[in-house]
Amino acid sequence: MTHPLIAQLTLEEKASLVSGASFWTTRGVERVGIQGATLTDGPHGVRMQAGNADHLGINAAHPATAFPTAASLGSSWDPALVEEIGQALGEESRALDVDVLLGPGVNIKRSPLCGRNFEYFSEDPLVAGALGSAWVTGVQSRGVGASLKHYAANNQETDRMRVSAQVDERSLREIYFPAFEQTVTSSQPATVMCSYNRVNGVFASQNHWLLTDVLRGDWGFEGYVVSDWGAVVDPVAAVAAGLDLEMPSSGERGPAAIVDAVHDGSLEESLLDLAVSRVLTTHDRLRAARTPASSVETTTEQHHQLARRAAAAGSVLLTNEGGLLPLSASEGGRIAVIGEFARTPRYQGAGSSHINPTRLDSALDAIRAATSRAVAYEPGFTLDGEFSQALQDAAVEAARAADVVVVFLGLPDAEESEGFDRPHIDLPAVQTGLLKAISAVSQKIVVVLSNGSVVALGDVTGPAQAVLEMWLGGQASGSAAADILFGTAEPQGRLAETVPVRLQDTPAYLNWPGSDREVVYGERVYVGYRWYDTIDRDVAFPFGHGLGYTTFSFTDASVTVPDSRVATATVEVTVTNTGDRAGAEVVQVYVADPVAGVDRPAHELRAFAKVRLAAGESQRVRLELDERAFAYWSKTGWLVEPGSYVIEVGASSRDIRHRESITLEVDLPTPELDTESTFEEFEAHPQGSKVLEEFLAGLGDSAAMFRDPESRKLLAGIPMTSMLSFTGEPDIQGTLNTLLQKTRA
Amino acid sequence: MTHPLIAQLTLEEKASLVSGASFWTTRGVERVGIQGATLTDGPHGVRMQAGNADHLGINAAHPATAFPTAASLGSSWDPALVEEIGQALGEESRALDVDVLLGPGVNIKRSPLCGRNFEYFSEDPLVAGALGSAWVTGVQSRGVGASLKHYAANNQETDRMRVSAQVDERSLREIYFPAFEQTVTSSQPATVMCSYNRVNGVFASQNHWLLTDVLRGDWGFEGYVVSDWGAVVDPVAAVAAGLDLEMPSSGERGPAAIVDAVHDGSLEESLLDLAVSRVLTTHDRLRAARTPASSVETTTEQHHQLARRAAAAGSVLLTNEGGLLPLSASEGGRIAVIGEFARTPRYQGAGSSHINPTRLDSALDAIRAATSRAVAYEPGFTLDGEFSQALQDAAVEAARAADVVVVFLGLPDAEESEGFDRPHIDLPAVQTGLLKAISAVSQKIVVVLSNGSVVALGDVTGPAQAVLEMWLGGQASGSAAADILFGTAEPQGRLAETVPVRLQDTPAYLNWPGSDREVVYGERVYVGYRWYDTIDRDVAFPFGHGLGYTTFSFTDASVTVPDSRVATATVEVTVTNTGDRAGAEVVQVYVADPVAGVDRPAHELRAFAKVRLAAGESQRVRLELDERAFAYWSKTGWLVEPGSYVIEVGASSRDIRHRESITLEVDLPTPELDTESTFEEFEAHPQGSKVLEEFLAGLGDSAAMFRDPESRKLLAGIPMTSMLSFTGEPDIQGTLNTLLQKTRA
Repeated sequence: MTHPLIAQLTLEEKASLVSGASFWTTRGVERVGIQGATLTDGPHGVRMQAGNADHLGINAAHPATAFPTAASLGSSWDPALVEEIGQALGEESRALDVDVLLGPGVNIKRSPLCGRNFEYFSEDPLVAGALGSAWVTGVQSRGVGASLKHYAANNQETDRMRVSAQVDERSLREIYFPAFEQTVTSSQPATVMCSYNRVNGVFASQNHWLLTDVLRGDWGFEGYVVSDWGAVVDPVAAVAAGLDLEMPSSGERGPAAIVDAVHDGSLEESLLDLAVSRVLTTHDRLRAARTPASSVETTTEQHHQLARRAAAAGSVLLTNEGGLLPLSASEGGRIAVIGEFARTPRYQGAGSSHINPTRLDSALDAIRAATSRAVAYEPGFTLDGEFSQALQDAAVEAARAADVVVVFLGLPDAEESEGFDRPHIDLPAVQTGLLKAISAVSQKIVVVLSNGSVVALGDVTGPAQAVLEMWLGGQASGSAAADILFGTAEPQGRLAETVPVRLQDTPAYLNWPGSDREVVYGERVYVGYRWYDTIDRDVAFPFGHGLGYTTFSFTDASVTVPDSRVATATVEVTVTNTGDRAGAEVVQVYVADPVAGVDRPAHELRAFAKVRLAAGESQRVRLELDERAFAYWSKTGWLVEPGSYVIEVGASSRDIRHRESITLEVDLPTPELDTESTFEEFEAHPQGSKVLEEFLAGLGDSAAMFRDPESRKLLAGIPMTSMLSFTGEPDIQGTLNTLLQKTRA
Repeated sequence: MTHPLIAQLTLEEKASLVSGASFWTTRGVERVGIQGATLTDGPHGVRMQAGNADHLGINAAHPATAFPTAASLGSSWDPALVEEIGQALGEESRALDVDVLLGPGVNIKRSPLCGRNFEYFSEDPLVAGALGSAWVTGVQSRGVGASLKHYAANNQETDRMRVSAQVDERSLREIYFPAFEQTVTSSQPATVMCSYNRVNGVFASQNHWLLTDVLRGDWGFEGYVVSDWGAVVDPVAAVAAGLDLEMPSSGERGPAAIVDAVHDGSLEESLLDLAVSRVLTTHDRLRAARTPASSVETTTEQHHQLARRAAAAGSVLLTNEGGLLPLSASEGGRIAVIGEFARTPRYQGAGSSHINPTRLDSALDAIRAATSRAVAYEPGFTLDGEFSQALQDAAVEAARAADVVVVFLGLPDAEESEGFDRPHIDLPAVQTGLLKAISAVSQKIVVVLSNGSVVALGDVTGPAQAVLEMWLGGQASGSAAADILFGTAEPQGRLAETVPVRLQDTPAYLNWPGSDREVVYGERVYVGYRWYDTIDRDVAFPFGHGLGYTTFSFTDASVTVPDSRVATATVEVTVTNTGDRAGAEVVQVYVADPVAGVDRPAHELRAFAKVRLAAGESQRVRLELDERAFAYWSKTGWLVEPGSYVIEVGASSRDIRHRESITLEVDLPTPELDTESTFEEFEAHPQGSKVLEEFLAGLGDSAAMFRDPESRKLLAGIPMTSMLSFTGEPDIQGTLNTLLQKTRA
């Protein structure tokens, strides 16, 4: 584990290597041939800054392809596509001499209000983990490192640099960790980026449990941990906790503090050696894996087309009454295109992921290029939210004169961004007001949405006959929208995030965003559909929902358990494209555990597969469920209980086409009885029950109520200590220890 | 504070005095004239056991009046009535030589599932505190001590002896503590009983923060703390934390451990002296205040009539379509009385509060005695939940032949009790099935309910034209029901607990009852109507709701703020009985704080008054709002922010008749900036903003983004430490300390 050069380095040199050289680079030691490395922002493109550096997308950067944001990629449910984008990002990184690209972001969308949701994939850890892992594999295939972020429990922007996320361990293990865990175990990202916030009171940057016990101990992470930019508060505590690289540079401050700490004995030098070794070893490995660099220019067109294809793959057709979409490119009369977003695309979010795109397609241009039909355009509204009667009137008139109206709505830049959270989930009133006005003159309305996180659709689905969610779809989202509108491409996305009816229905509503530097994750594991489906709350559109331009049937579903003593199962289902054109479907497998030792969500996504089929084509899809598909996190670790599980195969969390019960006969470790074990726990324990009855039989009147079946119901929850107290036992601890020893005999 | 006899006692004697002598008595020291005292269960009557002792209502007790349970008294919203019952309980305690009666229970109804909810008053701390305080005042007026219980956060029966209630301090201070606080500060109960459970990991019985810092330090409690029966795990830790009396007796175990601990120095003897002093001083005071004892027999009739009046006062008329109630006692044809509960009253709950009643009125007998109309009776169902076609058919036939049908439904004993929680909130299917069958033959159906905590009423309010909730109304609930049915008495209750539409809508649904010995209070302060009203969730019947037999108007409401620099206000409203018979109304005042530094409930009950008026009579009702009516618990303690508050005057949490904004110009202490204060906190601070601008002006290019208004929005939440890191400050801590000092200059 120790890097071979460690022995040749002075303490001062070593301390310098765990702190950046500049905003975007690490230090080298020329004397022994150690070179610095360049890390730069992602994850939707390469934000390589030329001049003044910042970590919030404020200053200019080299042109690079702006791929669809994670909100869009998340909705693709397509690891292969995300890996392809990762490869393209790796190529652009190589072209710009970037060693580590900062992404992917696999934080869970705890609330639709999080300003940075557009950088995250899903409310579900399996989707986030599968796509995060694919992204890393893609980028790293080019010898460029990924930086899995933001670890951990960084689910809001409000007070993100101080707030303590108060989360119970089960929720961390089941909801907030698995996407990190899956990405680490399957793709070994070169680096993991710690988040700014505290987790249960301790800054992530100096949280030994997070950075060492869990990340390395439990998951076997082999790379180095880098701080989010400016996340290090105490550089010595950070190294001691397992943080390997402070970014950006803290000048001589960090290194000097570390040197002092080693000198005064408050930091073991071996911990510093470990951090340096991880940084150097990782950079060595990346250099060894490097692919040849081509210039950005040579890949521009190819990557733009990839971005266009991906934007369609991630777009979600929410409604499509009477098959209004796709539109004919040649027939059907006039088209009115309405909305400022049609000519001024909103395609990416503000903050550190902000890219200087190589090209930018507007939907209006793309629509005009795609059709021979007459296309009128009116902006209808401005992005500043101010109402303009003149703009609205002109738009309504254009709509009245048209045979079909395509309205581009969305959230302006100012409403969602890294750095702050949204106060609500509404579209601007000028936009919904316009839509209402248009609905008075047209019954053929398509709404195309651009937003980074879900918006309330109560004022949209009524007036509009078709609603297409494009998210923030990257630099080619305009042309992708045109592709979908005219059916050149299919909307292949499925919601990776539930669309609620109202903000008040969302799981974290009353625990958001905290106060006094603390936020309580009171909804625990009930995030996203786990919340809505468990409390049976109406939603606007469920998790996993999305329409295409064809239809699919699921037939002959079966669940096989090869050996009921082992918690694995195989799900098979025949998916048939029953429509008349090619299309894609996402097969979703949920697992429910109706009776468990703890409260569990109504069901949880445990496997999925995206299937592309020609018209009429069938495919037998096979999905594997491993042990974790049945497990929950108990105080003793992951636990699969024996008993019945329900396996559901469906096309959304609320469109389950097949349900089947299986029985697992796995061994449940007999819990060891302890001094706090209750009367009923003794009764339920094979040895405990014998020991208890024997003991009670030997007691007199004082134990009568413990022998009576009627009163036992009331006494069931009484700890044995308490029972012994009630029976007048003189030496409770002694007697109890004797009883406990007998149960272990 | 030290009791005068302390000096004369040996260590062994002192240690013996902090542990019971038997199940229900404390020890004396004959040598110096210290007598033991008797403590016994309440709170709905005096459960003085004659033979074998137990703490779960299993063995027999002397006859005593079974007053309405706290669920019923809570719905009375009538402190004067509760005080009167307290006096009666004090008298019965004196008659049976009881020194301390164990009650009242002022725990908050966190979930309708809690098996012991019938022993608690409300989901609202103000209602619980006002009634708990009145109960104590009543009991103690007879020289009998009360024992305020179960302190604290004991809101479920499941695993109650081990479970740790994980509750943030604000929720404790705002929701779970105030009823204890109000009772202590206004009525000084002789004793407070600690609960079995842990609070944030530490057993209540050895929780120094609860028993000493908060109870004595913050609230000024002067009596002694007694353990719930069997709640002491470590007698030495208990004394050190502020527990004064372990009950029941632990034989020589507890005293011996305490003697050893004093000897080996692990327990300071002064702490033991303090505990002994509190026990002895309290018992001295009680004896000095004793009133003469009369026999139980002499008060039997009088207390029975009080119980009857109280049961009516606490009963809630939920619906009364077409004024079906009251029934005429003489006209209107046949009455069919249906339901086993009409002849087998369910009037109290199981467990430690279980009373051997002096008398027991059945509703059926009382109805027959009250009316000259023909009364048929059919049980309709059995209490074991088994369906009987014959019983149902007979009941339906009786209903068909009647002009009006009164159906007595409720929860059988087996479904709710101390010791376990309910798994659901449904009435037994045999009962709702019967009601449905009856509704096919009658459109004049009155349902009378007997249950200790709310039940789902979806299957009741449809078929029934009137629904009367009697709760567990004590030994006279049967005659009280007849009084209400025929209008001899009025149903005066208002819901002290919201009736939800579905269990899934309740605030703690997904955080109940915990697992692995831990329960997370994830809903925080959003308990009861604070939850439903803040998320605007439909309910079956809102908190505060209840109909009477007359109607009331609220007119000329006004809110006066005597001095806007002081957080107090006076609310006045004229209440007029606009109907043609006497009746009672509860005026409810809620306060809302729409803009606050923390998230707050939509509104909170801050004052109420029960008003009894003759037909046509008016009364000007005046209610005072004190500082706490506006305050929330912040990390620095209770805080009232300057700004607007909305004062609401209404007849339920969703029947607000008057709304008025007031503005408070109280001083908000300027928060002191610290090393974690953010950029925007510096900007908002009077000195901080000057210091910041001055500092930024002196910096070069590296600070450009901190001077730019556009990028400041993204940077607002950045702590100053981080800003200084980004601006390349070499000595962050030094510079920051200098800046902070300047802000304090």
